[in-house]
Amino acid sequence: MVLDDLQVPFVLAPLAGGPSTPALVAAVCETGGFGFLASGYLAPAQLDEQLQELRSLTRRPFGVNVFTPAPHPSDPAAYEPYADEIRRWAGERGLPVGRPAFDDDGYPEKLELLHRDPAAVVSFTFGMPERRTVDRLHEAGSEVWVTVTSPSEAALAIKGGADALVMQGSEAGGHRGSFDDGGAEPARSTLSLLQMLAGIGRPLVAAGGLMSGPAIAAAVTAGARAAQLGTAFLLCPEAGTAAPHRAALHAGVAPTRVTRAFTGRAARGIVNAFMDEHDRRAVSAYPEIQHLTAPLRREARARGDASMINLWAGEAYPLIREMPAAELVRALAGELSAGR
Amino acid sequence: MVLDDLQVPFVLAPLAGGPSTPALVAAVCETGGFGFLASGYLAPAQLDEQLQELRSLTRRPFGVNVFTPAPHPSDPAAYEPYADEIRRWAGERGLPVGRPAFDDDGYPEKLELLHRDPAAVVSFTFGMPERRTVDRLHEAGSEVWVTVTSPSEAALAIKGGADALVMQGSEAGGHRGSFDDGGAEPARSTLSLLQMLAGIGRPLVAAGGLMSGPAIAAAVTAGARAAQLGTAFLLCPEAGTAAPHRAALHAGVAPTRVTRAFTGRAARGIVNAFMDEHDRRAVSAYPEIQHLTAPLRREARARGDASMINLWAGEAYPLIREMPAAELVRALAGELSAGR
Repeated sequence: MVLDDLQVPFVLAPLAGGPSTPALVAAVCETGGFGFLASGYLAPAQLDEQLQELRSLTRRPFGVNVFTPAPHPSDPAAYEPYADEIRRWAGERGLPVGRPAFDDDGYPEKLELLHRDPAAVVSFTFGMPERRTVDRLHEAGSEVWVTVTSPSEAALAIKGGADALVMQGSEAGGHRGSFDDGGAEPARSTLSLLQMLAGIGRPLVAAGGLMSGPAIAAAVTAGARAAQLGTAFLLCPEAGTAAPHRAALHAGVAPTRVTRAFTGRAARGIVNAFMDEHDRRAVSAYPEIQHLTAPLRREARARGDASMINLWAGEAYPLIREMPAAELVRALAGELSAGR
Repeated sequence: MVLDDLQVPFVLAPLAGGPSTPALVAAVCETGGFGFLASGYLAPAQLDEQLQELRSLTRRPFGVNVFTPAPHPSDPAAYEPYADEIRRWAGERGLPVGRPAFDDDGYPEKLELLHRDPAAVVSFTFGMPERRTVDRLHEAGSEVWVTVTSPSEAALAIKGGADALVMQGSEAGGHRGSFDDGGAEPARSTLSLLQMLAGIGRPLVAAGGLMSGPAIAAAVTAGARAAQLGTAFLLCPEAGTAAPHRAALHAGVAPTRVTRAFTGRAARGIVNAFMDEHDRRAVSAYPEIQHLTAPLRREARARGDASMINLWAGEAYPLIREMPAAELVRALAGELSAGR
C-alpha cells in the first residue's frame, strides 16, 4: 500500500476548483509526501493534460481524486426559489449566472482515462463508486480510497471495496464529502471520527483542520495511518489559489462557517458578504447551484472581489504558512520528528 | 501545580445539573485522576454539604467549578417571544414553567465558601472572574483555571491571572463555556484550538469529545498537559445522571446538536423532540431561559420522559462505557500506556 511507503505520514488533499495544480502535487511527492491531483470540475481533456504534466514533473506515485456523481438531478421545485434569489441578486449587480444544470462531471470519461493511465491511488468524494468501478481500478493497479464523514459511510465504503478511508472531520475546508448532502448524519470532528472509526478494519487517513506537525502527530496517535492536509497548502506559490482567496487566507481574521450558498452542497469557507446574505435560504442541490453561481464567481475572481467568492478554508486556517510546498513539507516533517 | 502531580494526564469535567456528585469526584481522585465538583445550580449551602461529603470520601486534591455570572440581565424584549412560546407549549401539556429571572448562581457566597475551605483548583466557566477574585483564590492557595473556547478568550484569561486554560472544543457536551454566548467567535474543534493556542504560555487542559485513551494521548501529543473528560463518565453508577438521560446515552443512536432551546445558552445535547421543536427560535438569554424551563425539565425527568429534557452529551457519546468510575479511569490509563 501507498501508506506503507510514506516517508512522512501525510497526504496533500485534492483541492478542486483552482488550487490543485500538477506543480503543487509534484512538489509534495518529490519531498516525501503523497499528493492528490483534483479532477473535480476539470474536463476529461484537461485532466489528461494535467496528468501528463504531472508525470513530466515527478516519477513518484501520486493520487487522483474524483467526484462521485449524484445519483439523480435535484428537484427544481426545491432549488428554484434559491436560484431566483441568486439571479435577482446577480442581475442587480450586472453579474453573470449559469444554468442550474445537472451533470456527472465527466465521471465515465475520467474513469476511462484513469484506467488507461493509472494513478497509484484514486480517491472518491461525495459517495461510494459502484463495485465494478472499484474492481476496474483494482485491475489497473490503483488503490481505491473513499472519503467518509460518518461511521455509516465508512461501513458502506468498506462493503464496497475501499482500500483506505479518508475520514473527513467537520473542521475541514471546502466541501464536506458526505455521501448524502441533505442527510441526517451530523458533522463530527476529526478527533471524534477517529475515535468512532477506531478498529474498523481499513487504514484511516485523517482530514479536517490539520495545519501543523503536532496535529499530524495527534491524528496518528489517535489511530490514523496518515493525515491529509489541504488548507495548509493554499498559499504555496505552486497552488492555483486565486488572488482574493489568498488575501483572505493571509488576513486570517474572519471566522469560517459551513454554507451551501455557493454550490448547493455543504462546504466550509471564510465568512464573507455572499455567505451572510444567502446561506440561510440556500438549499441542498449540487451540482445545480454550483453551475448557477460559477460564472458569477469567475467574474468576481477576475475583479479581485473576495466578498462574493467561495473562500474555502478549514477551521484552523489562521495558522496557514506562506512558503513553497517543498519547504512546507519539510517544516511539517521537522515538527513531527521533534514531537516524537 | 496540580498538573505536575497527575498520575494519569486526565481530569474529570464538572458536570453541573445532576451528574456531578461527591462520590464520582472522589472515585476519580482516588484512582489517580483529578476530579472537579460542579457548583453550578447548587445553593451555597448545598455546595458546603457536598464539599464536606467529598472531603470525607477522599484526602486527595480536587477542584471545584464555578459559573461566572453574566455581567447584566438579558433584555426581556429579546427573550419574551421565546418565553411565551415555551409557556404556551408547556401549558398545552400541563407542565410547569418558572420565571425567567436573572441571578448570579450564588457566586459571591460560593467564592466566600471556597476562600474559607479552599480546593486545590477553582475553575471558572462562562467568563473571566475579576482580578481581585483571582487574587483571593491564589491567597487561599488555590490554582485558578479558566474555561476558554477561542484564542481571544485565552488571551483575556491569561491577562486576568489564570494559571491554566481549560480549552473547550466544539465537540464538548453540555454548555459551551464562551465568555459571550451571543458573540461572534466561531466554534472550533479541540484539535483546531490546540493548534491555535500552542505556545500561548499557560498549560492547556483539552476538553471536548474525548472519550478514550487514544484521544487523551492525541490531545497530549498536540500540546495539552491533560485532557478533561465529562460525557465519558455520565453512565458511571456514581454519577447523578437522570434515568431518561442514561437511557438516551445508552442507546447511542441519535445525533447531537448545539442548541439554546433549554437554557438560553449554547449547549450540545442528544437531539430530541424539544430541541427539534424549539431551537430555531431559541435566543441567547442565560440564565433567564434556564430558570424558565427548569420546572418543566424537572417534571419530565420525574416522569422519565427524555423527549423534553436536556440530554447533554459530547459528539462522540456513542463510545460511552457503563462501568464504575474507578474502573473507567483504569481502563483509560491502560489504553494510554498501551499507545505509548
